[in-house]
Amino acid sequence: MCELLGMECNVPTDIVFSFSGLRQRGGKTGPHADGWGLAFYEGRATRVFLDPTPACQSPLARFLGENPIKTLLAVGHIRRRTRGPTTLANTHPFVRELWGRHWVFAHNGTLPRVRRHKLGRFDPIGTTDSEHAFCVLLEGLRKRFPAYPTRRRELWSAVAEIGAQLGDDGTFNFLLGDGRHLFARCATKLSHIIRKAPFGLAALADDDVRIDFSTVTTPNDRVAVIATCPLTTNEAWTVGKPGELWVFEKGTLRATLPSKTDTIRASRRVIQRSRKQR
Amino acid sequence: MCELLGMECNVPTDIVFSFSGLRQRGGKTGPHADGWGLAFYEGRATRVFLDPTPACQSPLARFLGENPIKTLLAVGHIRRRTRGPTTLANTHPFVRELWGRHWVFAHNGTLPRVRRHKLGRFDPIGTTDSEHAFCVLLEGLRKRFPAYPTRRRELWSAVAEIGAQLGDDGTFNFLLGDGRHLFARCATKLSHIIRKAPFGLAALADDDVRIDFSTVTTPNDRVAVIATCPLTTNEAWTVGKPGELWVFEKGTLRATLPSKTDTIRASRRVIQRSRKQR
Repeated sequence: MCELLGMECNVPTDIVFSFSGLRQRGGKTGPHADGWGLAFYEGRATRVFLDPTPACQSPLARFLGENPIKTLLAVGHIRRRTRGPTTLANTHPFVRELWGRHWVFAHNGTLPRVRRHKLGRFDPIGTTDSEHAFCVLLEGLRKRFPAYPTRRRELWSAVAEIGAQLGDDGTFNFLLGDGRHLFARCATKLSHIIRKAPFGLAALADDDVRIDFSTVTTPNDRVAVIATCPLTTNEAWTVGKPGELWVFEKGTLRATLPSKTDTIRASRRVIQRSRKQR
Repeated sequence: MCELLGMECNVPTDIVFSFSGLRQRGGKTGPHADGWGLAFYEGRATRVFLDPTPACQSPLARFLGENPIKTLLAVGHIRRRTRGPTTLANTHPFVRELWGRHWVFAHNGTLPRVRRHKLGRFDPIGTTDSEHAFCVLLEGLRKRFPAYPTRRRELWSAVAEIGAQLGDDGTFNFLLGDGRHLFARCATKLSHIIRKAPFGLAALADDDVRIDFSTVTTPNDRVAVIATCPLTTNEAWTVGKPGELWVFEKGTLRATLPSKTDTIRASRRVIQRSRKQR
């Protein structure tokens, strides 16, 4: 399994504080030592730093900590491999271009039967179930819409539906960025927090680091941070429910979409439980 | 105009020496101060470091100099913008996935009428003529072959032909990597050198740096370096002819393809000259 980290804001923000916590889990406070990656958007384009080495030892990870890049949208991942060897091709986040914008994807979980979903225009480069799922997800979007949807709720619903289909027989926690939104799907484990005024002190769970956000922000700033497990010990994180898709835009949680499939599965489970109890 | 740098080898090699020279031209010994990028392949996957700031001042460029990444194939670019603002989306090299491998592209020159070439499956993210040309080039390959061609000479010819079509009314020096080959097209200005045993001393043209390659190589090593202008002062570089496409593989120049269009244009020019002389 792996850990996810996302950030989506209304003003360019650096992710160093959160990434400092996460990177300790990459081989030090956590076992996720099979590579890491971090994508930073600038408009519709992204640049991705990838390193198939443990994040806690990586000189590149240290460099990014010392030379922060401000962005409105970032997607990060540290990997503990379950499927596919530790190579550059298997290092998340994965990137593809669709409709003239970069799409960035990182996954936590396993989808053992994902290859029954046919590929289309996008092919995996590596051997992970995750990249296969990403290619299927983008193909699903491409088939539904001829261009980037102007009715954005339709895009949100499509991501939720395809996410539910893919997650149907596996664990599909993911982060998906398109330069405008950050989609965050909880299958088993995902949390978020939206930092806004009045800003306070935050203390990292994985490192002896504290920050007083009131000294580095303005009253209008809104910063959503999404992570597999809460990164701080003294803040109230919202824990996701299985099957939920969060849609973040400009530091706001714009929508929480339950997936139809998940609703069906949840009700099936309730029915099965009630049958057993009889 | 911009400067290109490529490296293609039969053993993993670091590009630091060549990049050290090139990066001085990014705002110091040269005027190419509008961003830079460097892509390193590992198999069919690549990771790209991009920075829309002058290479000579960039902390990321310094980091790569101090933390060399060994690779069989690298594509670099420093930009002096002619079309499109200085943004991340306009920073070369550009990357797309086709047939389950990354393709990396960097361009030197301008193609003022490139938008008359229709796009297909690949859309530009930025506003450069270069990225548009790359998308057209890949679409041309995709249309000709259902998968990565097993007859590789057919791929080489296709790159040469599409390159000639695109370069027909503009300046189209480019580097194109696919993880196996490095294609290098000369329209106006491109040079290469293949370093092999017996290795000797090389002195950078742009920086007071010398290296004795015999101390860092084995007798079987072959390293092809391609650059807009020769990077060293004491080695014999091969200068490209207009319209030529070089195909490098495992540190060897596998083919030099003249483009049909260029041959036609060259013969037209000869005819025109002889008419004038009459």
